[in-house]
Amino acid sequence: MSVTAAKGFTAAGIAAGIKQNGNPDLALVVNTGPRRAAAGVFTSNRVKAAPVVWSQQVLTDGELTAVVLNSGGANACTGPQGFQDTHATAEKVAEVLSAQGEEVGAGEVAVASTGLIGVLLPMDKLLPGVEKAAAELSEHGGEKAAIAIKTTDTVHKTAVVTEDGWTVGGMAKGAGMLAPGLATMLVVLTTDADVDAEGLDAALRSATRTTFDRVDSDGCMSTNDTVLLLASGASGLTPARDEFAEAVRTVCDDLARQLIGDAEGASKDIRIEVVNAATEDDAVEVGRTIARNNLLKCAIHGEDPNWGRVLSAIGTTSAAFEPDRLNVAINGVWVCKNGSVGEDRDLVDMRYREVTVTADLAAGSESAVIWANDLTADYVHENSAYSS
Amino acid sequence: MSVTAAKGFTAAGIAAGIKQNGNPDLALVVNTGPRRAAAGVFTSNRVKAAPVVWSQQVLTDGELTAVVLNSGGANACTGPQGFQDTHATAEKVAEVLSAQGEEVGAGEVAVASTGLIGVLLPMDKLLPGVEKAAAELSEHGGEKAAIAIKTTDTVHKTAVVTEDGWTVGGMAKGAGMLAPGLATMLVVLTTDADVDAEGLDAALRSATRTTFDRVDSDGCMSTNDTVLLLASGASGLTPARDEFAEAVRTVCDDLARQLIGDAEGASKDIRIEVVNAATEDDAVEVGRTIARNNLLKCAIHGEDPNWGRVLSAIGTTSAAFEPDRLNVAINGVWVCKNGSVGEDRDLVDMRYREVTVTADLAAGSESAVIWANDLTADYVHENSAYSS
Repeated sequence: MSVTAAKGFTAAGIAAGIKQNGNPDLALVVNTGPRRAAAGVFTSNRVKAAPVVWSQQVLTDGELTAVVLNSGGANACTGPQGFQDTHATAEKVAEVLSAQGEEVGAGEVAVASTGLIGVLLPMDKLLPGVEKAAAELSEHGGEKAAIAIKTTDTVHKTAVVTEDGWTVGGMAKGAGMLAPGLATMLVVLTTDADVDAEGLDAALRSATRTTFDRVDSDGCMSTNDTVLLLASGASGLTPARDEFAEAVRTVCDDLARQLIGDAEGASKDIRIEVVNAATEDDAVEVGRTIARNNLLKCAIHGEDPNWGRVLSAIGTTSAAFEPDRLNVAINGVWVCKNGSVGEDRDLVDMRYREVTVTADLAAGSESAVIWANDLTADYVHENSAYSS
Repeated sequence: MSVTAAKGFTAAGIAAGIKQNGNPDLALVVNTGPRRAAAGVFTSNRVKAAPVVWSQQVLTDGELTAVVLNSGGANACTGPQGFQDTHATAEKVAEVLSAQGEEVGAGEVAVASTGLIGVLLPMDKLLPGVEKAAAELSEHGGEKAAIAIKTTDTVHKTAVVTEDGWTVGGMAKGAGMLAPGLATMLVVLTTDADVDAEGLDAALRSATRTTFDRVDSDGCMSTNDTVLLLASGASGLTPARDEFAEAVRTVCDDLARQLIGDAEGASKDIRIEVVNAATEDDAVEVGRTIARNNLLKCAIHGEDPNWGRVLSAIGTTSAAFEPDRLNVAINGVWVCKNGSVGEDRDLVDMRYREVTVTADLAAGSESAVIWANDLTADYVHENSAYSS
């Protein structure tokens, strides 16, 4: 499953010793062709990790043969040495793959890293790890690769959609620093559909816009977010553009939901539906603003349908609305009507992990869904002790 | 002290029974003249509480005789009935003050409320409370008034500056929902300087811009923020414009610092200095973005000088900077230099409550200071149980 569900891909996940606890920390994904088309979407953070800068460069020609990913270190804010390390990692992958068969250049290898910011990677462990991973490449290696990219994730995340003769599959990691302009995460998607780089790029951008870009666990945007989509063409089939885009979107949506479901310290997954907005942009702005309101996130943790905090969040946006026409439902109970007290808040049942907050702007017909998490003492604990 | 430090003011603070625990919950401040000039600054939240809408209206003529404030209920998101209740409160104040002497109209009475959103005030308790407060008005009532406006505040907040023959004093409440576009709070400032409404307005706007507007405890903006400045002229002195503005700024700064020091569940007060910015707006944007980064707030709670989280926050702004020229100091130790690892993080001592984060954008010569708090399990606890 995972990145090897589609034909034309091998993968491996191994322990290189980058993580001090000895857990798997290096993954390799190889496109065995015949096609090597690829597309990528990266963090919009202006402080970008070295591997993000590298991978953006090597993707300009729309081709990738391999992706190497490590957990145990983000290689972000590491200066010129950090970039040299990323380059050396890609060179090493090219060298070991070339030794296995056809010639591969470093420019065909994307690199992705995740972990603590501001620390150089232990290259004396990482480079031998690349050799070890290459030796273990397999058509059944997708699961192990997904496991090797975990950081604070409690479970590994994979998803697959199979259509008539072709498949889109993928893996994701991410459990914190999840915020728009991509959630903080590494994602590799593969397909055996015969789609060129332009087609991949269109499908990927369209998919991430309404999936990963609408996940906002804690409002914090990473320096390392990377989503790659690789096509091997091994199925020999070229799906219709819409059909392919929908399959990619379904896999992204599935993985995005898994990220929220495993967010650091969270006890609730919050589905924020903004409806009857004047524009989609308004709906997204309002959704994100609600998603980032710490007081509301605390209230939901406490199973308190505190709609006043939803209204005060909406009030800070520039979206079109009239305060006295706003309606808010929590788990289907319209606790706020026309900007004031609505149905009895005691009717709201918030016992389950998934909580739906519906904000009706009464200003148009556009809508958007943003996913967020609650704010808990466990989140504080996990993130105040992370680097120590 | 407090609002009665300046001559020409009386005040009272009493328990009207609005709070179920019987604590003081109603304050009255009266300007006994000879001048009744006033200015106000209010929340920029588009969802405004009824008393904010009312007080903005009555301030249009630049005159106020009295301010009535209640804790125990915000009277926000309460529809037309909520506005009627605010109006009735002002009418009651006018009635009881008129009975004591010269005629006062409801249009000379500002109203401020704080507490839970979305609940109507118990007018059967509030209106008799106004009578009781009026009966207790005193030139020594400032302290009691400051106590009566507390909600989750653990201490009441007052400040006074006395110059040659004239005084500016004030009281503030606020312990959560502290964020720009005014911290979430009620503040009443009084002066016996002989300054007209225009002069008060200029001094107040200038003061709040660099004090209350730069306090960001939890990124959450209230529906009720109100800062009022009343002048009685009782000293008979008219200070120079700059001298007066500086006194008002000093009182505001003092109160703002007290708000941060008493923020809900906080264990650290974080002074964020942004230096060498291209513009002051850039400096403020970067400061606010750092102030709202939950991961950094958790790290500081854990006394972890995690500068990577400062950089990833800066990277989400639109301020002018080059990532590889950014420098960050925590409590004076430059842990990040030129966007990469700097001095040894073990040199950073974070044991004390006040922590200074300095972000050097290396892009100009402007600067700004934003105050914030850390994120703690206590904050989560206090805000997940607030309304239950």
